[in-house]
Amino acid sequence: MDCPDCVHLARNSGFCFGVKRAIQIAQDSARERNRIFTLGPLIHNPQMVARLKESGIQPIDDVTQIGAGETVIIRSHGVTRETLEYMKIHGIRYIDATCPYVSKTQQDGRLLSNEGYTVLIIGNREHPEVIALKSYVDGENFVVISPDDFPKKKFGKLGIISQTTQPLDKLKEIVHHAIPRCEELRVFNTICNATLIRQNSTRKLAARSDLMIVIGGRNSSNTKMLAHISSEIVETHHIETASEIDRSWLERKKRIGITAGASTPDWLILDVYNQIIKYTGDRERMVENVEDIPGSKEE
Amino acid sequence: MDCPDCVHLARNSGFCFGVKRAIQIAQDSARERNRIFTLGPLIHNPQMVARLKESGIQPIDDVTQIGAGETVIIRSHGVTRETLEYMKIHGIRYIDATCPYVSKTQQDGRLLSNEGYTVLIIGNREHPEVIALKSYVDGENFVVISPDDFPKKKFGKLGIISQTTQPLDKLKEIVHHAIPRCEELRVFNTICNATLIRQNSTRKLAARSDLMIVIGGRNSSNTKMLAHISSEIVETHHIETASEIDRSWLERKKRIGITAGASTPDWLILDVYNQIIKYTGDRERMVENVEDIPGSKEE
Repeated sequence: MDCPDCVHLARNSGFCFGVKRAIQIAQDSARERNRIFTLGPLIHNPQMVARLKESGIQPIDDVTQIGAGETVIIRSHGVTRETLEYMKIHGIRYIDATCPYVSKTQQDGRLLSNEGYTVLIIGNREHPEVIALKSYVDGENFVVISPDDFPKKKFGKLGIISQTTQPLDKLKEIVHHAIPRCEELRVFNTICNATLIRQNSTRKLAARSDLMIVIGGRNSSNTKMLAHISSEIVETHHIETASEIDRSWLERKKRIGITAGASTPDWLILDVYNQIIKYTGDRERMVENVEDIPGSKEE
Repeated sequence: MDCPDCVHLARNSGFCFGVKRAIQIAQDSARERNRIFTLGPLIHNPQMVARLKESGIQPIDDVTQIGAGETVIIRSHGVTRETLEYMKIHGIRYIDATCPYVSKTQQDGRLLSNEGYTVLIIGNREHPEVIALKSYVDGENFVVISPDDFPKKKFGKLGIISQTTQPLDKLKEIVHHAIPRCEELRVFNTICNATLIRQNSTRKLAARSDLMIVIGGRNSSNTKMLAHISSEIVETHHIETASEIDRSWLERKKRIGITAGASTPDWLILDVYNQIIKYTGDRERMVENVEDIPGSKEE
């Protein structure tokens, strides 16, 4: 970086593929209907959820809250087979925006149990993705998050799949533990590397910045993780919107870095960038698209 | 151990299941025939090979050395599919004494390649077991002995099998390395733990002995490994027969331990035990069966 007072966006930040796709599907569907529902908030970003509500996309907690003829968007985490069944029986229409990587994991889980494997799911037992995934496994199965959770028994055919956002090292650790405990082990590497890529990108940008601004829902796990990683390297502020920026943060900072979680929409990132530029006084550097922010297309 | 001047045999020592079975098959077959061949020495023990020769069991290097109507014993390592085919075409009869654990590995390799997996074989490229095993894999396959040998590419479906005598840690290490390099990993744990059990048993006995005698062919890898392990704990001598025992070794040794490789027959172990007892002067303690040697049935 040779420019003084520059503001850069992390190369990999903002919506991941699955989130972008789910939002697109929801918005396209809302255009054709008066109202439409999502099972739980579509993403962990309050500003985006509020904007979706304006388009008639309403979150509900449970399918029993709505009746026949209504339409539900299945969010990127997927839903249980039981919920799907309920909707079919009760005439609730659904549009499936399950992330294709999550669908693949569900298919892998089903294949393993159909072929007689005991299935080990690596993930958080309470996470909606894991709850949905588990419903696709018919036979014996276990959810583990560390080798300590490993069942105290020997297995014949053991299959392993993972919640898509788990770290690769966790998968390696569990497999290491599983090898001497079974005769045959079949592992589907179902981890999506969007999370890892965003973390690496943040780490890289933080290392060459005097200040980092991390944008995303305070309820977003992956955004909180980005803020944590960044804060270990340089002064970091986690915000949801541009209005939270305190001008004093920017004083005597030559190089400012911006990053955003996988559930943070582009318009929030754009707002933050332009707000910072405004404070620098050089309004000519303001941009209209996220793609025009320096760094966003960097190799 | 509370007895002075005691001589103990390691709980797990001598013939493993596969070797015992192969010898039995060879001896039974030899009784019905004038002469019979083995492809390579049946086991890595010169004394046992010499005794088998007396029963008409002759090692050859290559099936092309014999003609139609002759009978060959396939030893515990197995043979290539090409050799089997050659024998069928040329009217050579064969008796299959392949270790069932090795046969299982061959079947696993075949299954993986039939189901479209690239097959990674962990083992020594030059070992007869690996050469035979590789012939059962039709599609793309690699033999690796360390992560450094790992092909520099990404795999879709990757299958892993191992030479039966490789250490478990090697399998774990290769699997660890494979996980981020493929989409699906299928591992058959084809390691036979006879080797590990003998090593642990030797380690245990060496730790409570003043002297260890390790019996087995000087060309036997697993016997050499037992001698190496033992020598790091206590004074150790690797011998092939009782006649090699130097009486001076026994001086001022209260506790003497004996162990033997997986290719060492019981009669050689018995000879060594009784020879040591003779030197102690207490001939009443001599035994007629290996099972009667103290320690051999210990839990």
